[in-house]
Amino acid sequence: MKTSGIEFINRGTVTSPRGFVAGATHAGIKKDPVSLDLGILSSEASCATAGMFTQTRIISAPVRLDRQRLQEGRATAIVTNSGCSNSYTGEQGMADAIEMAALAAEGIGIDAEEVLVASTGVTGQLLPMELIKSGISQVILDSDGGHDLARAIMTTDTVPKEAAVFVKAGDIEFTIGGVAKGSGMIHPNMATMFCFLTTDAAVELGFLKSALQKAMSLSLHMITIDGDTSPSDTVVLMANGLAGNEVIIAGNRQAEIFQEALNEICIFFAKALARDGEGATRLIEVTVNGGLNDREAGLAARSVVSSTLVKTAVYGGDPNWDRIIMALSNSGAEIDESKIDLTIGDVPMLKNSKPLTFSEARVIAALKQDVVPIAINFNLGTGSATAWGCDMSEAYVTINSEYMT
Amino acid sequence: MKTSGIEFINRGTVTSPRGFVAGATHAGIKKDPVSLDLGILSSEASCATAGMFTQTRIISAPVRLDRQRLQEGRATAIVTNSGCSNSYTGEQGMADAIEMAALAAEGIGIDAEEVLVASTGVTGQLLPMELIKSGISQVILDSDGGHDLARAIMTTDTVPKEAAVFVKAGDIEFTIGGVAKGSGMIHPNMATMFCFLTTDAAVELGFLKSALQKAMSLSLHMITIDGDTSPSDTVVLMANGLAGNEVIIAGNRQAEIFQEALNEICIFFAKALARDGEGATRLIEVTVNGGLNDREAGLAARSVVSSTLVKTAVYGGDPNWDRIIMALSNSGAEIDESKIDLTIGDVPMLKNSKPLTFSEARVIAALKQDVVPIAINFNLGTGSATAWGCDMSEAYVTINSEYMT
Repeated sequence: MKTSGIEFINRGTVTSPRGFVAGATHAGIKKDPVSLDLGILSSEASCATAGMFTQTRIISAPVRLDRQRLQEGRATAIVTNSGCSNSYTGEQGMADAIEMAALAAEGIGIDAEEVLVASTGVTGQLLPMELIKSGISQVILDSDGGHDLARAIMTTDTVPKEAAVFVKAGDIEFTIGGVAKGSGMIHPNMATMFCFLTTDAAVELGFLKSALQKAMSLSLHMITIDGDTSPSDTVVLMANGLAGNEVIIAGNRQAEIFQEALNEICIFFAKALARDGEGATRLIEVTVNGGLNDREAGLAARSVVSSTLVKTAVYGGDPNWDRIIMALSNSGAEIDESKIDLTIGDVPMLKNSKPLTFSEARVIAALKQDVVPIAINFNLGTGSATAWGCDMSEAYVTINSEYMT
Repeated sequence: MKTSGIEFINRGTVTSPRGFVAGATHAGIKKDPVSLDLGILSSEASCATAGMFTQTRIISAPVRLDRQRLQEGRATAIVTNSGCSNSYTGEQGMADAIEMAALAAEGIGIDAEEVLVASTGVTGQLLPMELIKSGISQVILDSDGGHDLARAIMTTDTVPKEAAVFVKAGDIEFTIGGVAKGSGMIHPNMATMFCFLTTDAAVELGFLKSALQKAMSLSLHMITIDGDTSPSDTVVLMANGLAGNEVIIAGNRQAEIFQEALNEICIFFAKALARDGEGATRLIEVTVNGGLNDREAGLAARSVVSSTLVKTAVYGGDPNWDRIIMALSNSGAEIDESKIDLTIGDVPMLKNSKPLTFSEARVIAALKQDVVPIAINFNLGTGSATAWGCDMSEAYVTINSEYMT
C-alpha cells in the first residue's frame, strides 16, 4: 500500500470530509415546482475559512456580508439558495442576507456570525423571505447531504458538480470535498459561480488562504465561458481540523500534498464548469509552454479560450490555426513571431511558426473529440499555464437570446 | 446661404476631394472570378499623411512598411488588395510589400517611398506576385474611382462603405472623403479593418495626426463586433492641400471645423462597420453620460456593446436590463450602485437604479428597431461617450464555424 497519494473518492462530495453535514429542500424560490433551491452546509466544529469573491464593481448582499464575516477567517456553516441572487437589492437585500444567516444559525444552534450566505438567481429582486424561512426550517442535515446541496445551487447548469479527494501522507489522512455551480461564467439573470470546498485537515489560516489563491490561479481563474463575471461569484474553503493532524502550515511536510490535492479538486471543478458552458458541445484545453513566465503563459492561454473565433472554429471542426495565432498575438504576452509551435489534438500544425503538412481529416477528427487539446510552445522561456473553455454553438446564442421570453 | 457648415455629399467617396484619383481591377487574388480585389488611390500632389495601425503583437508586412514610410508623415498613394493579407509571411512578405509599392509607383510615375501598402485577406500565405503585377498594370485611375476602390477592399463586408463631407468655413471650402472596410472586427482569415481618408485641405502634419487620433477615439475605437483585432488594421488620412486654404494648424479658426467634419465622417464609418458585423441584424448605440470623465464613460459604453449577453439579448428582443448593469459593473469604470439611470429606445427602465414600471411591449419594439439606442447616466460627473456594436445572432456562429469548410 502506498504511504502517500491522492485519490478521487467515488461519489465524493462536500460532505465527504469528517464532520461536515448538509441538506437541501425545495423552498419554492425557483419557479418550477420540484427543484431543490435552498441548502445548508455545516461543520461540527468551527472552521478556519478562506474566501474569494467576485471582483466586479456591484456586488451582491451575500458577498458583502461574507467578506465582513471572513475578516477573522472563521465560519461554521453556509446557507445558500438558487432562484434569486439578492444582488442589486440595496439595504433591504443586506438585511435579508443577515436574517437568512440568522435563521440558519438558529436551526443549527450556532452563533449567527459563524454563518456565510450565498445566493444565485435573478438579479434586482428581493429574496422571498417567507419561503426562505419556511425552507430553512425544513432542511435536514446529514453526512450524505452534499449530493442534495450540489443540486440546490444549480441554475442553468445541466449537471451537478461535486467531488472529493482522499489524501494519505505518511501517518496522516485527510479529505477535501466540494460542490460547485456555474454554466455561463455569468448568466446575469441567473448569475454566479459558486465553489464550496471543505476539508477535515487542520490547516493554519494564512496557509489556507494562500493555498486557495494558488489553487484558484490554476483552476477557476483559468476558465472562461463568455468573459463575464457576476456580482455573486463565491469560493469558500472551510477546514475543521477533525482529521486530528498536526496543523498544516506553509513549508511543513504536509503543505505540499495539501496544495497538490486542492489544486486537483479545483481543476476538476474548473473543467466541469467549462464543459457545462451554455450551449457547449466540447471542452477546449489550451496549454502554453515556453512563455517568458507563468503569468504571460496564462495570459496567452486565456486569450485563446476566450476568443469567440477560436470557440466557433472548434465548434465547426474548422482547422483554422490562424485564429489561434491571432488570439496569442492579441493576448499581451511576449511572443516571437518566428518561434511558435502549435499542436491541435495530436496533430502538429506549426513548427517554428512554419505551417506543417498535416492531414486535414485528422485535425477535424481531433476538433470533434469531447476534449480538444491545443498545445502551444513559445520557445522563449520556462513559463507554462493551462486554461479551459468551451466551444460556442448556435445554441449559446439561442439560450441567451430567448432567456426571458 | 450659410457661410459655415458641414454637409454630406451624395455618393461621396475617397476621390471626392480635389486631386485624388483611384481605380481597381479583378487581379484574381480572390477566388471568385469577378470581384474587384486590387486598387490604387493616388493624389496629384504629395500629401501630409497621418497613419494609425493595429496594436497586436504580430503585424502584417504592409503595416510594418507603412509605419516606416510614415515616419516623415508624407505619402502620395496607397496600393491595396483583398484576398491575401500578407501577414505572418516573414521576410518574403516584406519583400513582396516593397515590390507591390514599387510596381504601383512605377505605374503612377512617383517615388516608391511615397506609396503605402494595405493588404487584407487570408493569413499565412504569400501574395501571388504575378497576379499583383499584372493587376497593377491594368488599374486605370480617375476621379470617380473611389467607388471601385471601396469594393476592391471588401472581404466579408456585405456592402461597400464610402462617404464624403463638404465643409464651408468662412471663405474656405474643403472636402473630406473616405472608404472603409471591416465586418468582423477581425476575421483572422480575411482579416482587417481599413479606413482610407483623404482631404484637399492644407493641414499641418502635427495637427493632422492629433485630429486623426481624436476622431478615432470617438469613432473606430468605440466600436466592437467580436472583441478581436487583426494584424493589418490600417487607418490613413492624406491631406494634399489643393483646396488652397491657409494651412490649418492647432488652434486656428479652421481647426475646429476640420476636427468636427473629420469626427463626423469617422463616426459614419464606425456605425457602418458595426452595422455590417457578421450575422448582425441591428446596430446598438450605447451612450454613457454622467461618468467621472470621458475615459471612464468610454470604458463603460464599450463594455456594454462588447458583452455577448447584451448582444444576444438585443438579438432576442429581450428587455433584460440587468445584463447591461452587469456589463457596466465589469467595465472598470467608477459607478454608484444607487445612481444609475437607464433608457432603452425611448423607454426609461431605471431611475436612480430603481426599476421603473414599463411597457414590456414598448421595450421589445425598441429592441427590434434597426438602431437600438441604450442611454445610461451615472450621475457622477460630466464624462460622456458613445460606443457602437451589433447584436449577435446564430448566424454569427454559423458564419464563423463554417468559414473554411
